[in-house]
Amino acid sequence: MNRKEGNINCLKQALAFCGLWIMMSLFTCGIAQQRPKIAYTPAKDLTLVGKIAPTEKIFHRIDTNVFDDLPRAVKKRVVQSGGLAVSFKTNSPTIYAKWCTAGTTASATMTGVAYRGLDLYIKRNGRWQYAGIARPREGQDCASTTIIQGMDKEEKECLLYLPLYDETTRLEVGVDDGSTMQAGAYPFQKRVLVYGSSIVQGASASRSGLAYPARLSRETGIEFLNLGMGGSAKMEKSVVDMIASFEADAFLLDCIPNSSPSQVTQRTAYLIETIRKKHPDAPIIVMQSVIRERGYFNLASGKRIREQNDNVKTEVEKLLKKGMKNLYFIPADDFLGHDHEGTIDGTHPNDMGFDRMINVIKPKLMEVLVPIVN
Amino acid sequence: MNRKEGNINCLKQALAFCGLWIMMSLFTCGIAQQRPKIAYTPAKDLTLVGKIAPTEKIFHRIDTNVFDDLPRAVKKRVVQSGGLAVSFKTNSPTIYAKWCTAGTTASATMTGVAYRGLDLYIKRNGRWQYAGIARPREGQDCASTTIIQGMDKEEKECLLYLPLYDETTRLEVGVDDGSTMQAGAYPFQKRVLVYGSSIVQGASASRSGLAYPARLSRETGIEFLNLGMGGSAKMEKSVVDMIASFEADAFLLDCIPNSSPSQVTQRTAYLIETIRKKHPDAPIIVMQSVIRERGYFNLASGKRIREQNDNVKTEVEKLLKKGMKNLYFIPADDFLGHDHEGTIDGTHPNDMGFDRMINVIKPKLMEVLVPIVN
Repeated sequence: MNRKEGNINCLKQALAFCGLWIMMSLFTCGIAQQRPKIAYTPAKDLTLVGKIAPTEKIFHRIDTNVFDDLPRAVKKRVVQSGGLAVSFKTNSPTIYAKWCTAGTTASATMTGVAYRGLDLYIKRNGRWQYAGIARPREGQDCASTTIIQGMDKEEKECLLYLPLYDETTRLEVGVDDGSTMQAGAYPFQKRVLVYGSSIVQGASASRSGLAYPARLSRETGIEFLNLGMGGSAKMEKSVVDMIASFEADAFLLDCIPNSSPSQVTQRTAYLIETIRKKHPDAPIIVMQSVIRERGYFNLASGKRIREQNDNVKTEVEKLLKKGMKNLYFIPADDFLGHDHEGTIDGTHPNDMGFDRMINVIKPKLMEVLVPIVN
Repeated sequence: MNRKEGNINCLKQALAFCGLWIMMSLFTCGIAQQRPKIAYTPAKDLTLVGKIAPTEKIFHRIDTNVFDDLPRAVKKRVVQSGGLAVSFKTNSPTIYAKWCTAGTTASATMTGVAYRGLDLYIKRNGRWQYAGIARPREGQDCASTTIIQGMDKEEKECLLYLPLYDETTRLEVGVDDGSTMQAGAYPFQKRVLVYGSSIVQGASASRSGLAYPARLSRETGIEFLNLGMGGSAKMEKSVVDMIASFEADAFLLDCIPNSSPSQVTQRTAYLIETIRKKHPDAPIIVMQSVIRERGYFNLASGKRIREQNDNVKTEVEKLLKKGMKNLYFIPADDFLGHDHEGTIDGTHPNDMGFDRMINVIKPKLMEVLVPIVN
């Protein structure tokens, strides 16, 4: 090899090295572009929405150490995060989440996303609008995911709903590093406590933002606080006393589905009168139970639901006759529409059933609530 | 002990034995009453509904041995039972099912019941009405359950929908022993083949009877055959040739969501013209894609869906200009309503989104289809 050839070879090697270097840089930049650094903020540093009362564990709805005489089945439900959300503001084009739950498997009549995933809304043209979900990981307690990406860099108000039926143990919200991230304004005004069954807790909305108290809050601007207790809204004395102890501007009672007809007769007056004693001027609105679709075929089931609904009507009418003020009653006849397609299982509304129910109850609720807002 | 005492003791023993015997009999009868003997009938002996073509395995929608050149992702979907049902008549007060699926875990954006459970309708006042679901067993391929109980003993027409997204491998329908059980009449007339994506296959209806082709069939009496292929409706040549080979009275094409904007441009005309060649007089109805809700925030996603929908419109307009008859187009603008709540994940309609979509497309479909029915 002469000097000229040696120089050419050296040049070739330099070019090859250079090429490799450029390719590696492009590759690294590519990865960097695909995976920007994420800055996570724990939910406790953002604005927690939907809390009925302070709790030691922030994603519990009720502190079961404070209310330690609650029935066991109630205790199980009130530590689940149904109805809670976090409010924040960011100009990040991408929003991420890392979260953990107790890892309960979703029931067959709910989606995994509603049961233990997250649901993001962003304010657009002055309205809260669906933006993205975070899917839980099958068989894992924790997950980490991108909720929405590719947005412009305008600052946005965000509202992230927590899982409906699992206990949330950790939540951090991520934005692209260098973006702004701040606790958001509290998005709703006043406090309407909604006490009820699985239907209030959110079964079977397809995602947590579609639970009916959440929809009512976004659509009216008034906060409907979720005290749904799947299977366990039975108006027990300890539960009633707890409910009456909470700060609230109004009470919506949707607790008929879980109580037997005789329990409805025995317990409804105590519930309403106990709330009235502690909240002399608060509107109390009592709803009949959603009609069980299966009751059109299962004769015993049909009879039971008619008795539950007849009995709660009788109890409310008695109190009205005795002169109780600011007590209202919503009959269930049109809640699900009339095509019998509004439930997942004959009991729990699907999103279509909830939509129809909201169309019936919202105007009635607003008649009662607008005066307390203004 | 004298004879008198002896006689009394003997009588006591006899009474005690008698009492025990009566109690045991009552107990046994009680169990017998709680658990009547069940007579199971394999689905193959009932009327199978929703079949596009014969298949070797009866719960497959397409025989992938016959159509062995289909893309792999398509083959995976067409063996899933979305859209299939069994029709039967019985006077049993209780209806049971035993069934097995491939045991795939439901995606986080579907319920277990929709994904791999069963959904029962019974005719009441001349209409198909929801009666009950069968929940799959978590982590098990097979399940056995009561779908509805406590009914009167009038003979009823029943329609049991199979899982939407799992491969069904076995199905037996049970009635109380001694009740009648017969294959039912075929419940629908004519055949409209619906080719499309996951949305056609049923994501994310809350149960299989709420997939939109199933709802359209029940509501119109015209059969809408489900050829939904989750993620894989891309108008590939082998798929198009297969579709054109099927017997059908009309074709509803909802296959835009999975195809890129350029695939829409390249493949739409071939799909429509191939069907037209084999079916000179059949109405062909082309739908735009449901608007992706996430596209309101994710700018690239919003652009892609606009391009998909613009391109399919252009292709249909070209064919109409060239003089193709009996070709119709349904724009997607109002499919999901305008509150942005009609999806589970920004793409797949929830039951509310499907309901709105049906309200838009059903009148348009009926304009086209009524002449072929009469």
